[in-house]
Amino acid sequence: MAQGTGAANSQQAQQGTDIKHKMPVLGIDLGGTKLSCAMILDNKIVSDVRKVPTPKGAGKIIDAILKLIADFQKDNLIGGVGIATAGIVNVETGEILGSTGNLPGWEGTPIKTIIEQQTMLPVHVENDANAAAYGETHVANLSKKACVCVVTLGTGIGGGIVVFGKLYRGAHWAAGEVGHIKVAMDNRRLCTCGLFDCWEAFGSGKGFLATAKEILSQVSKEQSELAQLADTVTVELVIENAQSGDVVAQRIVQTWHEHVVSGLVSLAHTLDPDCFLVSGGMSKFVNYDLLRELFVDRTLPRIAEKVEILPAQLGTDAGIIGAARLVVDAIIAN
Amino acid sequence: MAQGTGAANSQQAQQGTDIKHKMPVLGIDLGGTKLSCAMILDNKIVSDVRKVPTPKGAGKIIDAILKLIADFQKDNLIGGVGIATAGIVNVETGEILGSTGNLPGWEGTPIKTIIEQQTMLPVHVENDANAAAYGETHVANLSKKACVCVVTLGTGIGGGIVVFGKLYRGAHWAAGEVGHIKVAMDNRRLCTCGLFDCWEAFGSGKGFLATAKEILSQVSKEQSELAQLADTVTVELVIENAQSGDVVAQRIVQTWHEHVVSGLVSLAHTLDPDCFLVSGGMSKFVNYDLLRELFVDRTLPRIAEKVEILPAQLGTDAGIIGAARLVVDAIIAN
Repeated sequence: MAQGTGAANSQQAQQGTDIKHKMPVLGIDLGGTKLSCAMILDNKIVSDVRKVPTPKGAGKIIDAILKLIADFQKDNLIGGVGIATAGIVNVETGEILGSTGNLPGWEGTPIKTIIEQQTMLPVHVENDANAAAYGETHVANLSKKACVCVVTLGTGIGGGIVVFGKLYRGAHWAAGEVGHIKVAMDNRRLCTCGLFDCWEAFGSGKGFLATAKEILSQVSKEQSELAQLADTVTVELVIENAQSGDVVAQRIVQTWHEHVVSGLVSLAHTLDPDCFLVSGGMSKFVNYDLLRELFVDRTLPRIAEKVEILPAQLGTDAGIIGAARLVVDAIIAN
Repeated sequence: MAQGTGAANSQQAQQGTDIKHKMPVLGIDLGGTKLSCAMILDNKIVSDVRKVPTPKGAGKIIDAILKLIADFQKDNLIGGVGIATAGIVNVETGEILGSTGNLPGWEGTPIKTIIEQQTMLPVHVENDANAAAYGETHVANLSKKACVCVVTLGTGIGGGIVVFGKLYRGAHWAAGEVGHIKVAMDNRRLCTCGLFDCWEAFGSGKGFLATAKEILSQVSKEQSELAQLADTVTVELVIENAQSGDVVAQRIVQTWHEHVVSGLVSLAHTLDPDCFLVSGGMSKFVNYDLLRELFVDRTLPRIAEKVEILPAQLGTDAGIIGAARLVVDAIIAN
């Protein structure tokens, strides 16, 4: 009897889950420059991706989010809202604990409560790197893996750690700040965060350009046609020249790969993940064969031979898709 | 009715648990040089700690373990055996996956199965750094914390990561190899593992002495009375001289603290732990005020202000106590 009731309850819950699953949710990605929003069903974007410039100040950001939600609700039934935001987020309360310089005034905003009260929809708020990592892991069908470490190589370096399909958020919601792993010990390079020798100061897009400048300022124009461009060179130009046989440009690209590997090595020895997924705007410049060769050379063999390094799949949509998946999973869990 | 049955089952389980809890277990710590064994009840050693030199070869090690168990069983009722061993351990099968140079021939040994079959006792086998981390965390009443990171500063550097009271073991049982976090990028120092610039090559006892040698070989005997002892100086002698006002010795001690902090910074940004527990033979030389000051100076403020750095409590008994606790918890779970 009790068992029968349990089975019925379970069936009911399952039906509920299915119904909720069949209703699309909104995924919102709040960055320092733009606010992106799309409708998601089964981890796929099923609408256009609407983008507006991020307004200044918490009140105006909330207004912009509410307007995006209302616009989508005019023509669609929405089951919930997942928000990926820069900054440190208390995921239980949905409050912004720590803001980045990109979103002044955002700290302290109880974003989940506000949006839930205004829309009557379930809302999940998550740090943007974590949301992206969650999206990448689930879309790649890696949610049963013991550990997936998603590393985002962009202007900076971000990361998210997913353990058996769940985000590892640390003791103070700040885990995965992998851009600030220390990769040198002699105050060689200042990071934008104010600390010295962070991984981000070497392995990010900014790091690539800093390395290019260091190297190009030491060579003559006979050695490289980029020599006179130390201050203005772009990543694309260095990559192009490296591919055309410019050995100085090749040295810059090689050094950048070594810098990227430095952080991966520390993460691998700490976390022993199943795999790294590499995402972000700089990831398209990664030579995975070279990266793997350098990684194996710098990692204990019993770890190096097991840990895969793979390109992530979702590109700039990872935050939206991950945030949407997080609110769906929160709905199912409740 | 169903509820009543559930409560009765729960009570029965609880009684079973209590009975097992009241029976002591053996904790065994298998290191490269010695094999230690003691009887443990409620996280406390309740017998003498018996030590024998570690024999050479897997067969002789097993014989020695079985003899220790049999000796204790002569006068005591033993509920299980927890074994902490060097090397990588598949905790589910209790097999040694990867051995260290200290225990040749140990790799591939199905230690859990062998000891269980010979003794008919429940056995849990765990990597020694993990077992120590587990013991330290539970004895310090930190098992409800989101993350405790135990760092062992000894001849080398080891570590264990405990998440909500459970060991985080990674995807291939190799997590927490924190000694091989990279703390420099220019092949400055070779680690005993064969890689360059591992944390262990700087922050361990060996690292301390390497730093002392580097610094002392550059100074005259007028600058430091240790100048002529670059190759023979001990950690204790450097510490003593630093305390007596030798500024060169003070520089060595300061540099070692900076090196220890390098790895802690990377771990803090990756894991965002509640706290670090610092253990191992070198931990008695740590100046926690200096360590904290250097840590705060090199860590993002929102993480630095939250993460505590504390001395561990169990000393060389951590492995024995942790292994014993692990087998008790495995018995309760089954």
